[in-house]
Amino acid sequence: MSLPNSFRLLAADGTARTGVLETPHGVVRTPAFMPVGTAGAMKGIHWREIRESGADIVLGNTYHLMLRPTAERIAALGGLQKFTGWNGPMLTDSGGFQVMSLAKLRKVTEQGVRFKSHIDGAVLDLSPERAIEVQRLFGSDIAMQLDECVRLPASRDEVDRAMQLSLRWAERCKRAFEGAPQGHMLFGIVQGGDVAKLRRQSAAGLGEIGFHGYAIGGLAVGEPQDVMLAMIEEAAPLLPQDRPRYLMGVGTPDDMIEAVKRGIDMFDCVLPTRNGRHGHAFTRRGVINLRNARHADDPRPLDEESSWPPARSYSRAYLHHLVKAGEALGAMLLSEINIAYFQSLMAGVREAIAAGQFADFRAATKAGWAAGDLPPR
Amino acid sequence: MSLPNSFRLLAADGTARTGVLETPHGVVRTPAFMPVGTAGAMKGIHWREIRESGADIVLGNTYHLMLRPTAERIAALGGLQKFTGWNGPMLTDSGGFQVMSLAKLRKVTEQGVRFKSHIDGAVLDLSPERAIEVQRLFGSDIAMQLDECVRLPASRDEVDRAMQLSLRWAERCKRAFEGAPQGHMLFGIVQGGDVAKLRRQSAAGLGEIGFHGYAIGGLAVGEPQDVMLAMIEEAAPLLPQDRPRYLMGVGTPDDMIEAVKRGIDMFDCVLPTRNGRHGHAFTRRGVINLRNARHADDPRPLDEESSWPPARSYSRAYLHHLVKAGEALGAMLLSEINIAYFQSLMAGVREAIAAGQFADFRAATKAGWAAGDLPPR
Repeated sequence: MSLPNSFRLLAADGTARTGVLETPHGVVRTPAFMPVGTAGAMKGIHWREIRESGADIVLGNTYHLMLRPTAERIAALGGLQKFTGWNGPMLTDSGGFQVMSLAKLRKVTEQGVRFKSHIDGAVLDLSPERAIEVQRLFGSDIAMQLDECVRLPASRDEVDRAMQLSLRWAERCKRAFEGAPQGHMLFGIVQGGDVAKLRRQSAAGLGEIGFHGYAIGGLAVGEPQDVMLAMIEEAAPLLPQDRPRYLMGVGTPDDMIEAVKRGIDMFDCVLPTRNGRHGHAFTRRGVINLRNARHADDPRPLDEESSWPPARSYSRAYLHHLVKAGEALGAMLLSEINIAYFQSLMAGVREAIAAGQFADFRAATKAGWAAGDLPPR
Repeated sequence: MSLPNSFRLLAADGTARTGVLETPHGVVRTPAFMPVGTAGAMKGIHWREIRESGADIVLGNTYHLMLRPTAERIAALGGLQKFTGWNGPMLTDSGGFQVMSLAKLRKVTEQGVRFKSHIDGAVLDLSPERAIEVQRLFGSDIAMQLDECVRLPASRDEVDRAMQLSLRWAERCKRAFEGAPQGHMLFGIVQGGDVAKLRRQSAAGLGEIGFHGYAIGGLAVGEPQDVMLAMIEEAAPLLPQDRPRYLMGVGTPDDMIEAVKRGIDMFDCVLPTRNGRHGHAFTRRGVINLRNARHADDPRPLDEESSWPPARSYSRAYLHHLVKAGEALGAMLLSEINIAYFQSLMAGVREAIAAGQFADFRAATKAGWAAGDLPPR
């Protein structure tokens, strides 16, 4: 069954694409990086800075939010946007991935997954139908199907079983999503681990069911980058060309550039905020570790050409001091500097594709990272 | 010896006063509340929010900054303002109070205090001369004399000894401050514990030495409020009327209102940020504990009439959720909401004094706190 399409491709350059995705809460320019606001908040960043950084859309984690403050409470308070004050597009995952990584005593059956909350030990069930119900209570602009994501390495049989189960869950999610308000979207998720044939089977199966968009899941879970890229190359060509494609949980700037080259439109990752909290800055000269003593007396900014004011105005010496002293402001500044860098990278990608110069952009960007940081002063 | 006076009284209402203090980095409207940026940063607040909250001046802690990143490094990087990016007036304490409360193996002699750094165990000396040297390296707009602040309760002899020592250190600090650049100021500190006669002796002695301004120290260290206010009443009338008076480490909104009534012009305290990190909001209806379950489903803002946008726009339910989930954003929002409340209180105090309506303002403000929070919904 074909669903309405809110995605419009504006330009392609090879297999790289740029477009716009209309959601009930606004327009998303693609390729897009979605900052992760796990429990209804960005760690250490005000919402206005997320907006100013150039982010069109953010991601919320269903697992965390369904446990606390709960989906029913968020619905009673007017939905996730109203609750958080982020007045823009929001995608929520299905909760499945975090159930696997955070919850205790999880048990997967055909029906769904039963688990114990890591907060209070309550036993809860998450079925495909409940995953959709929860995300509709949130009022998510984009909901994700429930899937089972196996840890790699895993046997081929195990990967096959989880992929097939995820396909059956995809169908149930689609049925549960019927009657969702106009403009709200549901994405299916390609599984199949590191097995090319299973990835192709999953992508084709999801395309037959029909979704508003398609994610590729179960990657960036420790496998080498070439395996991840090979799996994208298997799946992407089999997904409907006119729908958005979202690579879940990815990734590093280099991962994103390579995935865009292979036709990916959307990304999410905790890397910019997590690494910011650990004193690492993503820049056009690669990753800079502000803990390093070489910065202690350095009056130069992180990047005098950054689009983000704090990356131009604060000295490396001050950022080094904040990180060494454990000051919250250090984590706050580096997290937002990193989010802004990811956004400026996506803006550059979009412009380059529109201009038919993606190959040059990719080469120049990688050359900048490879050249590395400024010499010490 | 009389020093140049950068303080101008604009109006008085009883013993309450309002004025302006000119510093090399800008004008401070008094009564003023100085947020505390211990180690060169506000905990969880961006500098621009400190500025937007209405703060004219902030305080830095010499003890922390002299240990890390060190005074010499800050000087080489252009001084505290340039280093931190706070482009406004800054007062630094002398380091003495934190040596007493944080350092290990401290030993007070006539010469100064020898202590072990709580960071790396290095043995350091802080003399009156070194305290001034360090603060001049910082480029502080207002430096404080080194003093000895005894813990209460203490014997009268002990309080007397520390007060007399502080007076001798005050003279040495004044000498060490000679030749400081135009417009930079040095404040003496009244000591004397809870002994009225010693407070009077200290205030009179400092007035004879002559400073740009005068602080009252060694209060708000656990004694009842009436003892603190009684000591202010002893000291304030003996301090030069045309100079600013600063009550160190104070305090609660009620403490500040009562101290303003008794002629105090400046305050500093970690309360708004520390209590913000613990989920407490200061409001015109008193202190609200956002951890309380009564807020979990409450869509109302903290204070719909607040001058600070987040206090009007975020629901109590969201703030409650952030606090319960341990999200950094909760501490960030409540810290800035509290700083903004302290600033709006000072703005109200200044206006009321200028209008000759301080008594009414004080009564109405206290009535608001006493009436308490809105009834639960």
